[in-house]
Amino acid sequence: MNFLYQALEQQLTKQIESGQLPLGSRLPSVRSLCKEQSLSKSTVLTAYARLEAAGLVNARPKSGYFVCYQPQSAVVKHRAEQAQPPAFINQDALLLDIMDQSSAFDICPGQTEPSCNEPLRRCLGRAARRQKGADQHYYNEPSGLLGLRKQLQRRCADGGSRVTEDQLVVTGGCQHSLLLALMAVTRPGDTVAVESPGFYGVLQLLESLGLKAVEIPSLVDTGLSPDALLMALQNWSISALVVMPAYATPTGACMTDQNRQRLVNIVAQYDLPVIEDDIYGDLTFALQRPRTLHSYAQDQGFDGVMLCSSISKSLSRDLRIGWIVPGRYLAEVKKLKLVTMLAGSHMSQLGLQMYMEEGSYERHIRHYRQQLVQQCAQLQQLIRQLFPDTVTYSQPRGGLVLWLELPEHIDTLALYNQARQFGISITPGQLFSSQDRYQNCLRLSFAQPWNEPRIAALKTLAGLVIEWTEPN
Amino acid sequence: MNFLYQALEQQLTKQIESGQLPLGSRLPSVRSLCKEQSLSKSTVLTAYARLEAAGLVNARPKSGYFVCYQPQSAVVKHRAEQAQPPAFINQDALLLDIMDQSSAFDICPGQTEPSCNEPLRRCLGRAARRQKGADQHYYNEPSGLLGLRKQLQRRCADGGSRVTEDQLVVTGGCQHSLLLALMAVTRPGDTVAVESPGFYGVLQLLESLGLKAVEIPSLVDTGLSPDALLMALQNWSISALVVMPAYATPTGACMTDQNRQRLVNIVAQYDLPVIEDDIYGDLTFALQRPRTLHSYAQDQGFDGVMLCSSISKSLSRDLRIGWIVPGRYLAEVKKLKLVTMLAGSHMSQLGLQMYMEEGSYERHIRHYRQQLVQQCAQLQQLIRQLFPDTVTYSQPRGGLVLWLELPEHIDTLALYNQARQFGISITPGQLFSSQDRYQNCLRLSFAQPWNEPRIAALKTLAGLVIEWTEPN
Repeated sequence: MNFLYQALEQQLTKQIESGQLPLGSRLPSVRSLCKEQSLSKSTVLTAYARLEAAGLVNARPKSGYFVCYQPQSAVVKHRAEQAQPPAFINQDALLLDIMDQSSAFDICPGQTEPSCNEPLRRCLGRAARRQKGADQHYYNEPSGLLGLRKQLQRRCADGGSRVTEDQLVVTGGCQHSLLLALMAVTRPGDTVAVESPGFYGVLQLLESLGLKAVEIPSLVDTGLSPDALLMALQNWSISALVVMPAYATPTGACMTDQNRQRLVNIVAQYDLPVIEDDIYGDLTFALQRPRTLHSYAQDQGFDGVMLCSSISKSLSRDLRIGWIVPGRYLAEVKKLKLVTMLAGSHMSQLGLQMYMEEGSYERHIRHYRQQLVQQCAQLQQLIRQLFPDTVTYSQPRGGLVLWLELPEHIDTLALYNQARQFGISITPGQLFSSQDRYQNCLRLSFAQPWNEPRIAALKTLAGLVIEWTEPN
Repeated sequence: MNFLYQALEQQLTKQIESGQLPLGSRLPSVRSLCKEQSLSKSTVLTAYARLEAAGLVNARPKSGYFVCYQPQSAVVKHRAEQAQPPAFINQDALLLDIMDQSSAFDICPGQTEPSCNEPLRRCLGRAARRQKGADQHYYNEPSGLLGLRKQLQRRCADGGSRVTEDQLVVTGGCQHSLLLALMAVTRPGDTVAVESPGFYGVLQLLESLGLKAVEIPSLVDTGLSPDALLMALQNWSISALVVMPAYATPTGACMTDQNRQRLVNIVAQYDLPVIEDDIYGDLTFALQRPRTLHSYAQDQGFDGVMLCSSISKSLSRDLRIGWIVPGRYLAEVKKLKLVTMLAGSHMSQLGLQMYMEEGSYERHIRHYRQQLVQQCAQLQQLIRQLFPDTVTYSQPRGGLVLWLELPEHIDTLALYNQARQFGISITPGQLFSSQDRYQNCLRLSFAQPWNEPRIAALKTLAGLVIEWTEPN
């Protein structure tokens, strides 16, 4: 064995033939492998080309190399596979790990029981008692429960969008809304413009639907840059834009009114379908929530903006209720809702409808907003106290999260794995890009109160960062 | 009008909607209104909260309540748009129409209230009362509620499949399971083998995912022909097979044990991923339900069969709970569940878990099976009595449906539109193929008891068929 590429080839062949790299899995990116194993790019490319020639992997343009070989030796269950991996090397595993701990919005999940929304519980109990035979025997109507749609219509009105009940479709959450919206306006192979840094759920959706992403810079304070989008539109063929104009994850950024107007002018001119993720819109720190892009588009008669939202961030992640106002794509979205999940639950929808009708949602949001203002300020103060001065953070005016930028040499994916040993959960920056960016950034949430365990967790995290920062 | 707050709410609503209290004006303070109208503080606060929920007023902290509604004289409701279209010319519109009437399994939907499953309602009520803060604040674990997965494991065992809790993923229903399974094993442009006639939901999924269908003949009694599949595999490159071996829709066909074994031999030889739709498996007329393809495949060490099912047909369409046992595609399916809907509802899963734990599901199924045996026999007798001799029908031994074949010149899509005028709902044969087949066939369901309105509906339908059959 003389050449480095042969060693690499042999190593990967073994992993594929043993099933360790199963059929359909993606090989490490060329760049990451170069870094990890200190190899040159041509060494890795040679090894990959040989694996391809041997029929073990397939190259897919702009996506990477995928295993296309299935070990014939009968299907053994590898126990080792089920053990917790010591470190997370790809986004899928990382995301699954975060979701497994239910920890995307809590720095130390499971330590304390969050307070329960009693009025919501009562409404759900009432809805359960009102279940009828028809609910059990028939599917709920394709657009969702009419009474709930009427309430959601008012949520839209709060953002300035004028929507009738029959222009709105209830979904199984905002992620489901995004799926329907993307399926409605793209075909596999299309390119979609997304924010960078931007929501990982969208990146994962694009990958699963065979779509390409072009990442448009999103600023920490004012969000998506309309000018950058314009430049992208002038240079590439783009099928849709996914954007979170209000309190975007992971930065908490909020687009200015001027930028919203300018963005709508641009997309209307290019007739570009826009998927507006408004999931954090209700969680403003101000007296009035920002107007939706959808409402700006309505003002100038452009019906290509699809408004997506849910109550998962503002009220309950458990109800699995979101909605979409698909504009000109209404028929297609209704069909896709049927195709992907047939219908929603009458009981859950009725519970939410009653909760909204009695004014409890408004009351809850008002209270929650005040709580979030405080919790955000507390987090910022704690960061100033505990973290080195070299750490900067964003200044959200709504939402649940802020964005921490650490010194460049700190790898927050490694930090994630370190923190995890202490039961501490952070969201590393790499999750928010498909292009190995933001390695020194991380997202923190202020969705939960800063009680003792959470403050202690933040201290431990700060300690880890300081260890990285200071020479031993 | 029972409550004081309702009278007050109505009075103020009128004043706002008439413009008497214009946009921006302030409502009387709570204290002054209490005094003026001799009301309690809580009555006034309740009324104000409901006005706020209705989007008519805004509460501003420490300032009071302000009108935020502008009466719109310009909002015209187009009645014509809401009128029912006269006829359905494509599958999408047809399917949407059927779902709109909640009528895929009831010949005269909405005539009578079906009986309600009280024990299920009780379990859901209990689950609602047990909602915790954590359920509202965190997403449910990616694979679904552990206790429910343990129960579902037993459902799988009933079909001969040995499945551990961690090999099973809870989904948002069987249609959602099929979506995940197809996304896991295909890429756009691939060809998938399906049954013909076969479930329209699968055909729609294929179309939405950019997949091609090759239709494999499925016999009215024994279902999918393994020989026809073998021929297809020898001639085309096929990425997956979707098959419903137990009481398939639309015929009610059930594959024989020999055919199951033979089919598994073939797919194992070709290493072909199989998506087994087992949604009707529990609804057998026999003492023991048929063994799953998945269990045959396990016996010979082939882990390419993905077992999909739900309780939508056997218990409740409203819970939106299904599952999938993805075999070798477990990691991919878990990821796709996250990507398409993030998580399921803890409350609904807990309700179903408790219902299954207390043995109610077994009891319900036992009872429902007996009911279905009778209702199927009654339907067959009614067909013999009412329809011309030239009409033939299938002889299902389980499930919810049978398949009617009318004389060749009868177009059941036209018949659908005729019947619809009388409030009668049938499922035309064209829905079950992508190739304009089965124009003279239709699916009837025996899921509901044959009471007077349903017998009358069947008589009317038979009359329409006779009109088509006999010369004027």
